[in-house]
Amino acid sequence: MLQSHFDDLIQNRIDQKTKPPGALGQLEAVAFQLAKIQSSSEGVFVPHIDISKPCVIVFAGDHGIAQQGVSIAPSAVTQQMVMNFLAGGAAINCFCRANDIDFNVVDCGMLAPVADQSGQLQLSRLGQGTEDFSVQAAMSLTQVKQGIAAGSEIVSAKIAAGTNLLMFGEMGIGNTSSASALLSVTASLDVEQCVGLGTGISDEQLARKIQLVRRGVERCNSNDLEVLLSEVGGFEIVHMVGAFIEASRQRVPVLVDGFIVSVAALIAVKMEPQVRDYLFFAHASQEYAHRYVLELLNAKPLLDLSLRLGEGTGAAVAYPLLKCAAEFYNSMASFDSAGVTV
Amino acid sequence: MLQSHFDDLIQNRIDQKTKPPGALGQLEAVAFQLAKIQSSSEGVFVPHIDISKPCVIVFAGDHGIAQQGVSIAPSAVTQQMVMNFLAGGAAINCFCRANDIDFNVVDCGMLAPVADQSGQLQLSRLGQGTEDFSVQAAMSLTQVKQGIAAGSEIVSAKIAAGTNLLMFGEMGIGNTSSASALLSVTASLDVEQCVGLGTGISDEQLARKIQLVRRGVERCNSNDLEVLLSEVGGFEIVHMVGAFIEASRQRVPVLVDGFIVSVAALIAVKMEPQVRDYLFFAHASQEYAHRYVLELLNAKPLLDLSLRLGEGTGAAVAYPLLKCAAEFYNSMASFDSAGVTV
Repeated sequence: MLQSHFDDLIQNRIDQKTKPPGALGQLEAVAFQLAKIQSSSEGVFVPHIDISKPCVIVFAGDHGIAQQGVSIAPSAVTQQMVMNFLAGGAAINCFCRANDIDFNVVDCGMLAPVADQSGQLQLSRLGQGTEDFSVQAAMSLTQVKQGIAAGSEIVSAKIAAGTNLLMFGEMGIGNTSSASALLSVTASLDVEQCVGLGTGISDEQLARKIQLVRRGVERCNSNDLEVLLSEVGGFEIVHMVGAFIEASRQRVPVLVDGFIVSVAALIAVKMEPQVRDYLFFAHASQEYAHRYVLELLNAKPLLDLSLRLGEGTGAAVAYPLLKCAAEFYNSMASFDSAGVTV
Repeated sequence: MLQSHFDDLIQNRIDQKTKPPGALGQLEAVAFQLAKIQSSSEGVFVPHIDISKPCVIVFAGDHGIAQQGVSIAPSAVTQQMVMNFLAGGAAINCFCRANDIDFNVVDCGMLAPVADQSGQLQLSRLGQGTEDFSVQAAMSLTQVKQGIAAGSEIVSAKIAAGTNLLMFGEMGIGNTSSASALLSVTASLDVEQCVGLGTGISDEQLARKIQLVRRGVERCNSNDLEVLLSEVGGFEIVHMVGAFIEASRQRVPVLVDGFIVSVAALIAVKMEPQVRDYLFFAHASQEYAHRYVLELLNAKPLLDLSLRLGEGTGAAVAYPLLKCAAEFYNSMASFDSAGVTV
């Protein structure tokens, strides 16, 4: 847990800055939380936040349920998009370039592996796509545990290499279906509330998607979160659950992207409540059910730009706001130092 | 006016990017508008948006009405804050540093001039603060015309030096009173709707501020915008009106900050409607009346972070979002080039 005895020192530093109290709004809350995380991590009050080494990790995996036409695109697009990532042509690449963010991809179990010359791809394949969860369990409990452990190791290696702010993204045709099922069971919400248009399906496809997701949800009768993940989860999602848990254990902040990443965060928080302390929320996705996840996590997102692309794009777009929060905390003058009348 | 015959080419370029149509939400609208501005400026369709040389110009001026206690701070703070700007210690400096934005200050008529060793200060003094507009006209018509011309020249020089994206900020104790009066008359809104807490006054001060602003507003019985500016305007505000007009004449986009800057934009748009085509809106300020200005300008701001600091801070914080929009427009792969199935 974060240590509250730093609160007064941090708030005092913010309130001494040359501005009316609270005038930087949500950026002040961000600076406060970052400073609290890093002070707790160091064990001493830190007057300087360091998020200078941000990193996006996109977790990719395929979903058996995609065969049933729950998305506008076939599973082949997962692989095509991963190749696009590795070639630097996707939206997430653009935003990482624009904002100087380190970029990495993990193959968590796509239908088929891809060749990589870029050095940005890591293999952590739990299989060749999950099983169709509308028919049977998406994966075994062993795969769930392997995925959580692998996500944890991947994050651990990144932190060891200097990363001090993490962002997770996902790519996997069919994964909104998985995230919707996970949300429905975890939050006891009706399936219809949790299923949305994903990348942009028709009303007919939506009705079918609801039906298919419901089949998976009806099979989930255990309170065990690992069992739930095995029933309706995804390979990229179990990796992200492990990634969130490890980040919190190592006291590294995570800027959370949209619907699917937030559902992974929700499950990680349910497994280990301290995870919540390290989370910042980038945006409110156009995928409607994201609102419920944000509410459940008591989260106020920084942006509301009607994004619905995934890949970690919302987080990469929001990262400069955290940079601004850090910079004012670090280098803005105090009333005293600037000779400004309070 | 912007040329609509580029619309299809621009929209087509955006729709060919490797993402579901519309999945980048408001960033797509930003890219579209930037591309349209720069295509119109070049006279040919541009496949590459260039906003690589952004610049913040903070216009500073003092207000006679500040003597009446409409703010939490005395007029002396205008000068102190300008010195803080020049020393690099204010919030706007932090955000310009974080986002690589060129920074400049213009003394439009502070009570007393300040010494500058930084080379960032330009003098364009229309006087030693305005007159108290609750009692008499804030300035003469000659000063209004001088200020508009000066604002225009300042922007012109910046564009000549390579600036391709402008942001304006303001500093001037008492200037929300002036902006409220201008909004009330321009939009035929009741004074009470237009006056807010500024930097954070008490309810008692608010009642007094409303009374004082109303006195100025009651004197405004002309439809002439220059006359209006002379009655209740500010030196920094008339400069910004000229700055907005010049930016549009030279077809350079402007990212608009909060309440006071937006009121200057509103008046510029009323003077020359083409100004609106070049405006992007950074954020919805905590100063409530900013909502009305945004509505009048049919503007959807990018951020809503409860900022209420001024100085151009909201614009500087939002600039990376425009950078992201430009980057995806410029360098994101198309379905064809990336071999992704549509």
